[in-house]
Amino acid sequence: MARILYDLCGADQRLRFSPFCWRTHMALKHKGLDYEARPWLFTDKDEIAFSVEGDGSKATVPVLVDDDDRVVTDSFEILRYLDHAYPGMTLLAHDQAESRARFIKYWSETQVAPAIFRAIILDIFHNLDERDQPYFRETREKRFGTTLEEFRNVDQGLEMLDRALTPLRSHLQDLPFLDGQTAGGADYIAFGIFMTAHVMRAEPLLAEDDVVMQWQNRLLDEFQGFARNATTVRDLASN
Amino acid sequence: MARILYDLCGADQRLRFSPFCWRTHMALKHKGLDYEARPWLFTDKDEIAFSVEGDGSKATVPVLVDDDDRVVTDSFEILRYLDHAYPGMTLLAHDQAESRARFIKYWSETQVAPAIFRAIILDIFHNLDERDQPYFRETREKRFGTTLEEFRNVDQGLEMLDRALTPLRSHLQDLPFLDGQTAGGADYIAFGIFMTAHVMRAEPLLAEDDVVMQWQNRLLDEFQGFARNATTVRDLASN
Repeated sequence: MARILYDLCGADQRLRFSPFCWRTHMALKHKGLDYEARPWLFTDKDEIAFSVEGDGSKATVPVLVDDDDRVVTDSFEILRYLDHAYPGMTLLAHDQAESRARFIKYWSETQVAPAIFRAIILDIFHNLDERDQPYFRETREKRFGTTLEEFRNVDQGLEMLDRALTPLRSHLQDLPFLDGQTAGGADYIAFGIFMTAHVMRAEPLLAEDDVVMQWQNRLLDEFQGFARNATTVRDLASN
Repeated sequence: MARILYDLCGADQRLRFSPFCWRTHMALKHKGLDYEARPWLFTDKDEIAFSVEGDGSKATVPVLVDDDDRVVTDSFEILRYLDHAYPGMTLLAHDQAESRARFIKYWSETQVAPAIFRAIILDIFHNLDERDQPYFRETREKRFGTTLEEFRNVDQGLEMLDRALTPLRSHLQDLPFLDGQTAGGADYIAFGIFMTAHVMRAEPLLAEDDVVMQWQNRLLDEFQGFARNATTVRDLASN
């Protein structure tokens, strides 16, 4: 029985940096499921065209193909699917719990991720496969309404990030994880974008004594250091 | 059997404007529990000194006295207590669900409330009992590091609020409430500070077609319009 996660990669295929794919990696590990993480480029639309309606031009990762033929897209939907297909070791749970995790997803996507992208956008760009660079530049410049170089502002990004993290910082004074005493779906949802920075940026975004950095370190250590073992640009630079 | 909620009030005792007390009102209504909402001033420390250790100078509302002698303070702890003491019609639930609600509490307190306070601080001040005004000015000016008049900045507050609300706006595109299809503990936790503005400010903070305003309207309508029936400064002005 095959289980495949199509997983965004950089110029070096070992660089796996998509926040949404990282949510999925952590969720699959949380469930104790084996899978193949198949490297995928932004421009490999054809390869995952099966996952969407139409000509495949809107296809994006993560795409999970489970049990040979069950196709699930969108990281939040994948977590929901995994809870349904593999009960036990709950990720999102349901009802109120799932709905609150959805709010945390939007907090991550509307407040944290825009701040981090502003700081690291060129770190991402420079580590993309050269086939992906024109695609990335065109789509992101259209989205941002400016060039990548103009958009990038490390100081402003870090300031936005500092402001965005206030609720997480307060929460982590009380509990080690967003989901309480142990990591869960809400943690993986928020963690994804931090992995993008961890993989693609030479320097850490946060100080070692920051409670958010300590939370990130706890998540890097989960599953026998699964995320900590991910290849980063630092590993490539030292080769 | 007596159940008493000590409830912060303004110069007119019908003005009930504490965000933390409003969380508690909604939670008690959610559980279908009757109670007396006893008006309380910031300076009535003696009256609730029984709720804290020491001389009572740190006592604050909400204070819930349940079943004559069970004393619970802090709005989040009161919601937890109510789930424990009155199972059914869950407010926070437990484990992941409760922990995610705690994150939403901190989002409300570190991002939404500071924005709203910046806009409405003088609306609050002017509607306080004259015994409370010096206390409020002194404690808040110490906290803000500036005078109430300097702190107040409606435009800046509304801009901060607009930025703070992005995750809630996205969430409400998917679901009518933070807790899903029906209102729950996370909604009441976030709603409290909106009630402070609703009660104390003559003009609404948000446009009628804002999804957050529509969410607020749904919460005002809950429990046969319980919150909508609250006395506001608009009611007093029209007398």
